[in-house]
Order: sequence, then structure tokens, then C-alpha cells
Amino acid sequence: MMQVTSFEAEAAMAAPGKNQDHRLYLEDLDVGRRFTSATHAIDEAQIKGFATQFDPQPFHLDDAAAKATLFGGLAASGWHTAAITMRLLVESGLPLSGGIVGAGGEINWPKPTRPGDILQVVSEVEEVVPSRSRPDRGMVRVRSETRNQRGEVVQVLLAKLIVPRRAATSPQPHGELAAG
Amino acid sequence: MMQVTSFEAEAAMAAPGKNQDHRLYLEDLDVGRRFTSATHAIDEAQIKGFATQFDPQPFHLDDAAAKATLFGGLAASGWHTAAITMRLLVESGLPLSGGIVGAGGEINWPKPTRPGDILQVVSEVEEVVPSRSRPDRGMVRVRSETRNQRGEVVQVLLAKLIVPRRAATSPQPHGELAAG
Repeated sequence: MMQVTSFEAEAAMAAPGKNQDHRLYLEDLDVGRRFTSATHAIDEAQIKGFATQFDPQPFHLDDAAAKATLFGGLAASGWHTAAITMRLLVESGLPLSGGIVGAGGEINWPKPTRPGDILQVVSEVEEVVPSRSRPDRGMVRVRSETRNQRGEVVQVLLAKLIVPRRAATSPQPHGELAAG
Repeated sequence: MMQVTSFEAEAAMAAPGKNQDHRLYLEDLDVGRRFTSATHAIDEAQIKGFATQFDPQPFHLDDAAAKATLFGGLAASGWHTAAITMRLLVESGLPLSGGIVGAGGEINWPKPTRPGDILQVVSEVEEVVPSRSRPDRGMVRVRSETRNQRGEVVQVLLAKLIVPRRAATSPQPHGELAAG
């Protein structure tokens, strides 16, 4: 788990490269490079908890009701699968300098996530595009497949991420202002 | 708020049209039809709570650290904006028969969601395609813009949704089995 105090995080953000040499810059990301996250086990309580808060529909809340629907049984909200995928990417699946900052993307859920599933995210760099207007960053397109314990793909995310360049001129040290 | 007991939900799912005459079928959805949701006020505690659980990065967790980043201050995780959007759609923004069942879509976050924002979702039907293989349903493409209190768009979601047809032959009453 990435545990950072706010000061460390601030320093890392303000001065790329400091305290996070293991994290990757735009220059480090070749097309085809792959990453595999840790795993997350999802259970009925998590599924119902997320659904109660964000997606209160019978197929995400009640196993008996879900049986009568398209899902044929309790299934996690797709947004819950997306949120778990994000946590896996942030903590272990995609060690990017500057963190994982998405501008958007495409998302698909080929199969439902079920109680008892053990999720893992496999990501592959598909495109690397340095910014023409901002020499300190670029855009990376990453395909992240979220798979269950049987290797079935429950989510495909094609994300456009903003990634800093190693060679960038350091921006103004806003971190020091913010720390004051 | 849509409050359904599991029995009512089950009945509604198993026997489309029953107990949910106000909800819309494929036939009711013309291209250009628009829907406006209720509103949701997001605050710092919600932003940090979601981020702690699903997107633990400094710009979603700590205001001072966030100032030193691309975001320039605390911002909600895009997945949090997506989850709130889903709740608004489920409860008030898109009254579909059978609920809101997404196969996938495109998502973009043109601006960050900030503490104090009041979010509302405006949706428009962009395409309606009856299924060729399944006479009981079809696909609807809906564009949902999530806007803040200044009318700025913080998220655009182009979702492909599965919607039942009114004229469908009722499927096997799995609901009764499930209730037994």
C-alpha cells in the first residue's frame, strides 16, 4: 500500500523524482509494457454497501431479487468494479510518477463481478504521446483488464492518463507555499 | 428516492410494467428526449472518504498536498463523480424500466469536482437500437452531462444501456422461483 504523509506527497508532486525513484515517467513507458496489480477479494457486504451508497438497484442489493433480473444473481455495480480497479492501480498496478491522473476513457463490463470474486488488474501501455504545448508532460493510453480468479475479464478500461516527463523543468515550488 | 422492497423489485423485474408504469421502455425513448436529475451536494468529507477507500492519492485526500499538483486544490476522484452520477440517474435522472443496466461507455472529466459543488445530471437519448436477436430488449445510447452549480460540465458519460421493450413476451417468471 502506498502510504504517504501529506508532506512527502507534496514534495513528491512538487519535485518529481524525489522520494519516488521507483515510479515511472513518460520516458519510461514503452508501448507494450505490462503491469500486474495485487488482488482484491470482493464479498456480498462490499457489493451491497457500495450499491446502497451509489447504485441502489435490486440486482446490486438483494440476491433473491437479482435472480429475477438479467444478472441472474447478485452482481456488483460496474462503478464498484471501476473503483476497486482504481485502488488496485493506485496501490500496486501502475506506478506512475505524479500518480494516476485520468482525463477520461472507455469502460466496458463484459461480465458481472460476483460475491467471492478475486479481482486483479493487468495493464498494458498502448500509446505514449508527449504533449506539444506542455513540455513537462504527455498522454499515455493504457488498457487495463480487471480479471476474476478464473481469468475472466469483468472490466476493460482504456484510460487516457497524464504523465510527467523526467526531463521536465521543475515548475514553481508550489509545495513550499502550500506547506506554509 | 426510489425505495423498493426486494419483493416489489423482483415483481417489477419479472413482470415488466407492473408497479412501475411511470418508468420507460425502449418504445418510449425517442432520440433527443431529455431528463434532468435531482441534485447532490458534495463536501470535503465525502471526497476524502471515497478517496481513502478507492483512490488514495494526495490530490483527493489532502488539500495542502493537492495545491502542489495539477489539480491546484482538493478534487474528487473521477470515479467518485461517476458514482454520484449513477446514484442521481438511478434515483431521479433516468426512469428506465428494468433499471439502469450499462454495458459500458465512454467517460470524460473536463473539470474537477470540488468540495462544495452541487452536482446535477442532464441526460439526452442519442440512439435507440432494438436488438435483432433478443425481441424483448434493445440498446439505448445516452449522453449524461454532470454539471456543477455554475453549469460547468465536470463529467460527460456516453453510456450504452440495455432497456426492455414494452411489447416483449414475458420471460419465465424466475421471480416466483426466487421468492420461494
